[in-house]
Amino acid sequence: MSIETQKIYEAEFLLENMREILRRTAPDHRFSEEERKEFDENIKKLDKIVGEMRKNKYTGSNLKYIVDKIELRRREEDFINIDPIQAGGRLTLEARKAMIAYGDGYSICDHCFKPFRLDQIQKPPVHEFMEELAEFVGMETARVVRGARNGFQIVSNALLEKGDVALVSSLAHYSLCLAIESVGGVWKEIPLNRERIITGENTERKIEEVREKTGRLPKLVAVSHFDYIFANEHDVYGIGKTCREYGVPFLYNGAYTVGVMPVDGKKIGADFIVGSGHKSMASPAPTGILATTDEYAEKIFATTKLEGDLTGRSFGVKETYLLGCTVMGAPLIAMMASFPKVRERVKHWDEEIKKTRFFISEFTKIDGNKVVSEMPRKHTLTKVDTTDSFDKIAKKHRRRGYFLTDELKKRKITGLFPGTTREFKLNTYGLSWDQINYLAEAFKEIAEVYGLEVR
Amino acid sequence: MSIETQKIYEAEFLLENMREILRRTAPDHRFSEEERKEFDENIKKLDKIVGEMRKNKYTGSNLKYIVDKIELRRREEDFINIDPIQAGGRLTLEARKAMIAYGDGYSICDHCFKPFRLDQIQKPPVHEFMEELAEFVGMETARVVRGARNGFQIVSNALLEKGDVALVSSLAHYSLCLAIESVGGVWKEIPLNRERIITGENTERKIEEVREKTGRLPKLVAVSHFDYIFANEHDVYGIGKTCREYGVPFLYNGAYTVGVMPVDGKKIGADFIVGSGHKSMASPAPTGILATTDEYAEKIFATTKLEGDLTGRSFGVKETYLLGCTVMGAPLIAMMASFPKVRERVKHWDEEIKKTRFFISEFTKIDGNKVVSEMPRKHTLTKVDTTDSFDKIAKKHRRRGYFLTDELKKRKITGLFPGTTREFKLNTYGLSWDQINYLAEAFKEIAEVYGLEVR
Repeated sequence: MSIETQKIYEAEFLLENMREILRRTAPDHRFSEEERKEFDENIKKLDKIVGEMRKNKYTGSNLKYIVDKIELRRREEDFINIDPIQAGGRLTLEARKAMIAYGDGYSICDHCFKPFRLDQIQKPPVHEFMEELAEFVGMETARVVRGARNGFQIVSNALLEKGDVALVSSLAHYSLCLAIESVGGVWKEIPLNRERIITGENTERKIEEVREKTGRLPKLVAVSHFDYIFANEHDVYGIGKTCREYGVPFLYNGAYTVGVMPVDGKKIGADFIVGSGHKSMASPAPTGILATTDEYAEKIFATTKLEGDLTGRSFGVKETYLLGCTVMGAPLIAMMASFPKVRERVKHWDEEIKKTRFFISEFTKIDGNKVVSEMPRKHTLTKVDTTDSFDKIAKKHRRRGYFLTDELKKRKITGLFPGTTREFKLNTYGLSWDQINYLAEAFKEIAEVYGLEVR
Repeated sequence: MSIETQKIYEAEFLLENMREILRRTAPDHRFSEEERKEFDENIKKLDKIVGEMRKNKYTGSNLKYIVDKIELRRREEDFINIDPIQAGGRLTLEARKAMIAYGDGYSICDHCFKPFRLDQIQKPPVHEFMEELAEFVGMETARVVRGARNGFQIVSNALLEKGDVALVSSLAHYSLCLAIESVGGVWKEIPLNRERIITGENTERKIEEVREKTGRLPKLVAVSHFDYIFANEHDVYGIGKTCREYGVPFLYNGAYTVGVMPVDGKKIGADFIVGSGHKSMASPAPTGILATTDEYAEKIFATTKLEGDLTGRSFGVKETYLLGCTVMGAPLIAMMASFPKVRERVKHWDEEIKKTRFFISEFTKIDGNKVVSEMPRKHTLTKVDTTDSFDKIAKKHRRRGYFLTDELKKRKITGLFPGTTREFKLNTYGLSWDQINYLAEAFKEIAEVYGLEVR
């Protein structure tokens, strides 16, 4: 671990020790002799660290574990992380600060007044945030949900009866399929075209097929704008058009788009937009958004209808499929704190694509390296194939595919699936040009070390 | 805000600024001149704060907002917080440290290998944690879920068909009712006895009533050990016995018990134990646990059955009603980091009750103050009635019920519903004897200021 990272953690933990003493001695902070001593000892240690920081000359550090078996995490501080799913969920500075202050369970509920519903809280500005979220994706109403999958489930729950068919992409993520299955629905797959793209035409064909076989239209079409396997761009505009023609509601799965690139639900013709906080909105898990139109808001955000047979109680404005309040506390505040930057960063998606394309062009200079995803790249997530390059080395290497993991680790690059040298995914989202250059050089260097030709 | 609290936040935020620079410059941390300057400026500011801390002599601080409209939170540092739902979800020191390190979206998934399921992750020790959780509540299998309500929903989803009846307490929390309603079930209420307790007999009577009316047994009985309104203790042993006799599965709702007092599901005869992380396990929202027996594990943690009609894909070990992985990242790691202390603290529940009883005995020395919850108190959450004391003052006070809020705030006590002077709830969980004494004195002092008699 870099000593800088370690020392920052150490310093923060000392401050947390001090904060704990404040908590124990609230509200008057009259320290006992022992507490004073404890507080001062933390200050002393902190002072020593800051002294080292000032001189940029550090003594060692033994800090490795936070507690028990939980190690410090330093993936983002000391490594270039090209993990396919982690890039867009990296927290912003603001989110990290907000989480320090709002960690406690119900921290966001301090000012929850009538009608006692998360999306109505004014301070911190949850209500405003929900409205901004809806606008952000070009829809009329939005809620924060417990991950994109919870969004899929809410829509499925509201729209599907047992045995109803919902259409998904042949590349659909498992969580969408499970959401449909969990409410008793049945998912059927829309075929890819030759370019491995879901088109409006194929959607139409599948709708017709379902109508022929079951005598009824499917109840829902749910397709990712960019899928999780290749991150190919699917024809969501065409699918939206087809869905409107058939009157089948369309769920736009923006797990890989909402929060990294501009998304306009209205333009797409989507009835539902689902996004993922921890995948693409610089937020902790489990967070997501579910946005919809006025037409569908009452259906999916339906409020509770039942009442107590004995007491006559009912729960008014609580939204049934959401189970009332969804994501309170730290994950929500972090999402909110990240949002100004997230809203800004989607405007620079072009630049992210430029960086990815540059990296891919460098990466494919290594003889045998191929790209499995569509080209040119329209997303920062890419599936590559190194069967004819790194895998050849792996076959003869004592460490097999781990040689690549080792070599990357040596160069402080992480996030690839360990030991894999055939097909794998990587994501360059959020890396600076310097980091992109470093990354490209690292791969080329490794190739050269092992005698692969680099153009 | 106390200057100590403010300065600790300031210092932590400066360290986060520095951490952000490390992230930008990973992996080699070769700072540009500007970055070096930025890094050093943060150190300089930090140094100044530490200097002030050392001398225990602070200059002012302007830090109020984290970002935009999100204020610093200092409820736990500068106040005694007797909020009815917040006490058990206050983070431990360890949880706060863990969240600093594991904020990023998928932070816990760095070492997720086959079979790619959250509860199987070995590092950090998620798998071990799940096993310990099951043992902790005397059950055979446990999962972390997205809040207790998600636990209710998972069980309802697995057990109930449309129109099926589930029995709940007449004091059931809305989220349980919504969970049942969301899957098409119907909740019916078990009556309270005269002491406002749900008993085994009343449960039996209600089961019989449902059988008579519908010709079938209810599919589920779900009752809180301590309800959220009075925190009265309900006869979960008797209810468990009744349920076994009828063969109706019993869900023990431990939102107010799991994590604060010992819970042994086997002894209770529960088929499902649901707990809340943010309510009682010193964890961020949205977290909870769902534990069950070998008998029911396959049913509620059922793995996906469907497969793709085109691709033949299926998703193997993914658990359908859980939608696969549930709570990743920061909330889970915090829950894990708190767990050693949580496991320890339940052993000291007696002491918590002693403190509560002492407080209540002091509180009721104020003429007119009454307790609405059962007596003697068996829980730290209590509903009190001050209609004949504080409310009398409120009626004549310019600030109405807010006079009490104001007076408490002046004494750095928070968590009561603002403006309420008739019936309200408070929770003393986790307060030290010093804080309990302070709290009791504060209420008596306020009473005396307004001429109420104090015995």
